Amino acid sequence: MKITLALDAMGGDHGPAVTVPASLYQLEKNQDLHMILVGRKEELDRMLAGNKFVAKGRLRTQNATEVVEMHELPSLALRNKKDSSMRVAIELVQRGAADACVSAGNTGALMAVARFVLKMLPGIDRPAICSIMPGIAGDTHLLDLGANVDSSPEQLFQYAVMGSELTSALYNKSRPTVALLNVGAEEIKGNENVKQAAALLANSHLNYVGFVEGNDIFTGKVDVIVCDGFVGNIALKASEGVAEFLMHNAREHFQQSLYGRIAALISMPVLKDIRRKIDPRRYNGASLLGLRGIVIKSHGGADKISFGYAIEEAMLEVQKNIPQRISTELHKLFPEG
Amino acid sequence: MKITLALDAMGGDHGPAVTVPASLYQLEKNQDLHMILVGRKEELDRMLAGNKFVAKGRLRTQNATEVVEMHELPSLALRNKKDSSMRVAIELVQRGAADACVSAGNTGALMAVARFVLKMLPGIDRPAICSIMPGIAGDTHLLDLGANVDSSPEQLFQYAVMGSELTSALYNKSRPTVALLNVGAEEIKGNENVKQAAALLANSHLNYVGFVEGNDIFTGKVDVIVCDGFVGNIALKASEGVAEFLMHNAREHFQQSLYGRIAALISMPVLKDIRRKIDPRRYNGASLLGLRGIVIKSHGGADKISFGYAIEEAMLEVQKNIPQRISTELHKLFPEG
Repeated sequence: MKITLALDAMGGDHGPAVTVPASLYQLEKNQDLHMILVGRKEELDRMLAGNKFVAKGRLRTQNATEVVEMHELPSLALRNKKDSSMRVAIELVQRGAADACVSAGNTGALMAVARFVLKMLPGIDRPAICSIMPGIAGDTHLLDLGANVDSSPEQLFQYAVMGSELTSALYNKSRPTVALLNVGAEEIKGNENVKQAAALLANSHLNYVGFVEGNDIFTGKVDVIVCDGFVGNIALKASEGVAEFLMHNAREHFQQSLYGRIAALISMPVLKDIRRKIDPRRYNGASLLGLRGIVIKSHGGADKISFGYAIEEAMLEVQKNIPQRISTELHKLFPEG
Repeated sequence: MKITLALDAMGGDHGPAVTVPASLYQLEKNQDLHMILVGRKEELDRMLAGNKFVAKGRLRTQNATEVVEMHELPSLALRNKKDSSMRVAIELVQRGAADACVSAGNTGALMAVARFVLKMLPGIDRPAICSIMPGIAGDTHLLDLGANVDSSPEQLFQYAVMGSELTSALYNKSRPTVALLNVGAEEIKGNENVKQAAALLANSHLNYVGFVEGNDIFTGKVDVIVCDGFVGNIALKASEGVAEFLMHNAREHFQQSLYGRIAALISMPVLKDIRRKIDPRRYNGASLLGLRGIVIKSHGGADKISFGYAIEEAMLEVQKNIPQRISTELHKLFPEG
């Protein structure tokens, strides 16, 4: 199956220095992959001079004169930068010239532009950000991760539907388990929105299993965990913070004595193994769900390896035809949509 | 300074098996400490038969016939268990027979009973739970950790005042830095409550430094981080989850090969050092702030070491006279209170 991806080549902290090598690596790895690199054409063409994938017609560049800055206001990016690499890449998806778009750019702007250009699926208010979290017993998909703050019970329900469809498609699971993130597993706990969302979910056809607590994001005991974007974003960042703190301490302890340095040297292969297993780069590539098209958001600071995982996530979602599946499911739920 | 603590000896997952040895250890360590162990007197007296601290008059028991179960509804515990070890211990504080209460019991019940028996300080609606979080550059106090979900901007402001007073007293810092937990550092981000709380804080005398993100809970870049209880609880539990996940992976990797086991053996002193540094037991003992009295909540699963830290936190707050300090500060802010 031929897959064409439109890449926002200028997005992220490193721009083409990361997006170009990551693309070349993925083109090498996946014979069915075609790419359109969107950005300052002259600069990109210079980097790709004599490239075999260009010669084979699997890689081309598309000019976009502007770049959305990482901290630019989404509303301003939407209004003023109509020729940004981000927007032109999304327009390629809208026109059917590409199957999906990948960007490491400004999250807020990406959401605003994707929503404006691609439009939402019927029944969905705004895109939700969904990402895989690694866990002891397996992976869990967590959403929303910051797209929507102050989510209503109905929106939480929409996230549940979308997360369920995504994991069902990705893993060929017929009824993925779905839970609501809460401050306790007891039914009486939680804020008003969570309690009302629980009632909606309990009466739905989804495989809703009740409440889980924050630590369950990393136990892997359910397939999908649903939460408000404010909560999800803070849980994700707090987790990154504690991991960073633990690594910082480990490094310090291994370095602070001769014994520690020798121990570190001997443990190196094991430490590398551990790092590979929990490498956050493997989990790069969050989905913007609910759009009429596939948009994958890479971490802004992604390196070549990490950005490659976002590209792979985009390919997988194209193969599984995620927006169509979500749309069909929503149509069943809200036929008048 | 003589300090008398009332201990809910029956609370927590382990009851007297943990609370009694932890008390004896702390009595040994702190010459000024006196204790009243509250619970089934017969059982406690049997455990303390011939004890030197009892003989010296530094340790006594007080009968309470009931025990609040860990998953009992707070409203039912409040209404039906008027002779619970938790309630009798709090009443000792209310009557002035003890300077503070420590309990590892049911959090919701502890809050409800403490609020009913001790009452709130003028200007405060409900107790907030505050705990120390370790960080790269130092410790941070985070509140609220789950006492109040759906906190209003005014409540977030109250947490800021209480957290600031607590850290100011504990560390003799004149103007501790206070930040609001948010999904981004930019002013335009966040949910409505956070934005309104930011306006209140910016116009206050507090050393308010703006928004921080989830990872900053573990960078130690500010003294106090304020958030809604739903968010704080999930951030805390997610952090525990990721730490558990990382430890699980490390253990697995060290065990799965002969090389790994040898590496683990050689690294053992360093690994133990790391574990000691990040030992969550050291951070046991959350304060219920805003009450007319000192109540410290220990983790339910605390062991002897861990419960001892909660006792030490109680002693420190007695020495620093925390409720009086918060009360004075609130009176300055809301003189009509």
